[in-house]
Amino acid sequence: MSLENLNTRMLPAIEKELKRIVGRLDEPNTRHFHEMLVYHMGWSGEGSGSEATGKRIRPLLVLLTFAASSSMSGKAETDARGWETALPAATCIELIHNFSLVHDDIQDNSELRRGRPTVWKKWGMPQAVNVGDALFILAHIALLEIQNAFPLEKAQKAGAIINEACLGLSCGQFMDISYEKLNDLAVEDYWPMISGKTAALLSACTQVGATLGGADESTRESYRNFGHYLGLSFQVHDDYLGIWGDSALTGKSTESDLVAGKKTLPTLYGLAKKGVFAKRWAEGPIQSDEVGDLSDQLVMEGVKLFTQEATDQMTDLAIQSLRAAEPQGEAGEALFELVKLLLSRKA
Amino acid sequence: MSLENLNTRMLPAIEKELKRIVGRLDEPNTRHFHEMLVYHMGWSGEGSGSEATGKRIRPLLVLLTFAASSSMSGKAETDARGWETALPAATCIELIHNFSLVHDDIQDNSELRRGRPTVWKKWGMPQAVNVGDALFILAHIALLEIQNAFPLEKAQKAGAIINEACLGLSCGQFMDISYEKLNDLAVEDYWPMISGKTAALLSACTQVGATLGGADESTRESYRNFGHYLGLSFQVHDDYLGIWGDSALTGKSTESDLVAGKKTLPTLYGLAKKGVFAKRWAEGPIQSDEVGDLSDQLVMEGVKLFTQEATDQMTDLAIQSLRAAEPQGEAGEALFELVKLLLSRKA
Repeated sequence: MSLENLNTRMLPAIEKELKRIVGRLDEPNTRHFHEMLVYHMGWSGEGSGSEATGKRIRPLLVLLTFAASSSMSGKAETDARGWETALPAATCIELIHNFSLVHDDIQDNSELRRGRPTVWKKWGMPQAVNVGDALFILAHIALLEIQNAFPLEKAQKAGAIINEACLGLSCGQFMDISYEKLNDLAVEDYWPMISGKTAALLSACTQVGATLGGADESTRESYRNFGHYLGLSFQVHDDYLGIWGDSALTGKSTESDLVAGKKTLPTLYGLAKKGVFAKRWAEGPIQSDEVGDLSDQLVMEGVKLFTQEATDQMTDLAIQSLRAAEPQGEAGEALFELVKLLLSRKA
Repeated sequence: MSLENLNTRMLPAIEKELKRIVGRLDEPNTRHFHEMLVYHMGWSGEGSGSEATGKRIRPLLVLLTFAASSSMSGKAETDARGWETALPAATCIELIHNFSLVHDDIQDNSELRRGRPTVWKKWGMPQAVNVGDALFILAHIALLEIQNAFPLEKAQKAGAIINEACLGLSCGQFMDISYEKLNDLAVEDYWPMISGKTAALLSACTQVGATLGGADESTRESYRNFGHYLGLSFQVHDDYLGIWGDSALTGKSTESDLVAGKKTLPTLYGLAKKGVFAKRWAEGPIQSDEVGDLSDQLVMEGVKLFTQEATDQMTDLAIQSLRAAEPQGEAGEALFELVKLLLSRKA
């Protein structure tokens, strides 16, 4: 209820801000460049619309954390401002997320994102690298706007958090790409990779929200942990869906992480079991028609249960951290709802 | 003399700062990632050394402009600080330059840079995209360090200048890539492309130096113009060398811009002439053994002279702007020497 209520107001404001910043490229010499970014963001071209934009989880998380921490008692006069104030920070992080998606699609050679041809598929790899770069530059332009509504010191703190998250993102991406060629990976190698690739930016969302919202140090730390564990549980659940989700099992079995040969938590755990699954994996690429049997095999080897338990554990840690942060008001309730929503998704 | 004297002191300091920032990746999980950046920066691997690092023109320009504008009379107490203070800004811009080089090599499919295999050639395109991204992220980490030595407002101004320059860089890159497929380009299309691709970052160097140095508005404007015109003359001279330079004509004729089919000032002017050169260009890719005759043809059509005159014109504007900025002391002298050095280079 709270989430739906706030989302209805926040989402249009996020889209408007994103469009304004991306609109910086809407100049005579770069109109076609602007179109590429607008297409990627889901606002134009084939299949545009709410399916194509994604759920804007990250900016939502910034705004909710900001609102939930700025309305804390005793801070009413200085910090209890409208969530609109945090829009530049929210926009910045969503642009960073999209920069990473555009480059990720190039690196993974993915032809589709949210059912639409990727930027490199439409305009070639060289322009796609450039589209990603431009999204990242625009993110920094949004970042500088934080200072218009907040003291410079707070804005600088937000900047430092975001830079460190980007470094983590890039390091996670390095590990992910490296892992493709490594055959002696253990389950332990999984966590630093997804801590960077997925959790770093989600943790930056909650840290930035709490920092701008004026939360004290221990509250900021709790929000940081909340974002971190939310990111881990989100990724483990994603890995789960990549094998046992609807789209992996039914209809488009080529989308299964098993066929893609991805080093995910279930596959790494399955390999560590050194059973039938590991033996088959070692023999070479898995074909679409084997997906059903092999995912059943992983169930028998206890991998499905292990993955579910890992998600639950990370979710518990996320919720505990969120409780410790004592999020206030309607935004606080919405944060708890958001956790449930993210981790009950089926695709 | 002044330039050599200052360069001897500044260059090692620049390298040290760059190494410190890039060293952020020197962690157990990302050691190999760190190696990739260290290789690209010219510090390790085959052919490492001063030939491989490049001349570090951009950071030098930041430090010299800073020193030349901060020692202005009447500002001695507050602003006449050692050039070391501006090192984070210098480092930031050099990292941005290198981020753009790594991505540029991917986009242009260039296998060599400064005589060494490019990052994508050594470690594949996916990791190279990531190496470029990491250099850009590290640039922003260096940028945030500006605030340690300068008031927050100055640091923010420097950040805004740098962000705008990056946007210009990306837009210039967009035009450059688009131009490859366009056959109806005019000479006028050339200037916005190189204003972004080359001049934007050089102009940011001088603007940031002057801003941190405490120069007044009109002096900052003069330094801005100086960097801008220096960038334009630098690029036009580069285009000149790409056809009539030593490496284009002798020995490695495959390096000629004519063989690469690049849309440079001389080729665009040659096409506009609609003569023998334009006719040959329209017939398809130029072969190595045609380079001698075609570059002679361009001389006859007045293209070489036109290109030289364009360089001279931009150089004059750069020197006029620099004079208007009234650069002070040894650093001021060094700036004039730097212009001469850059525009008398033969390769």
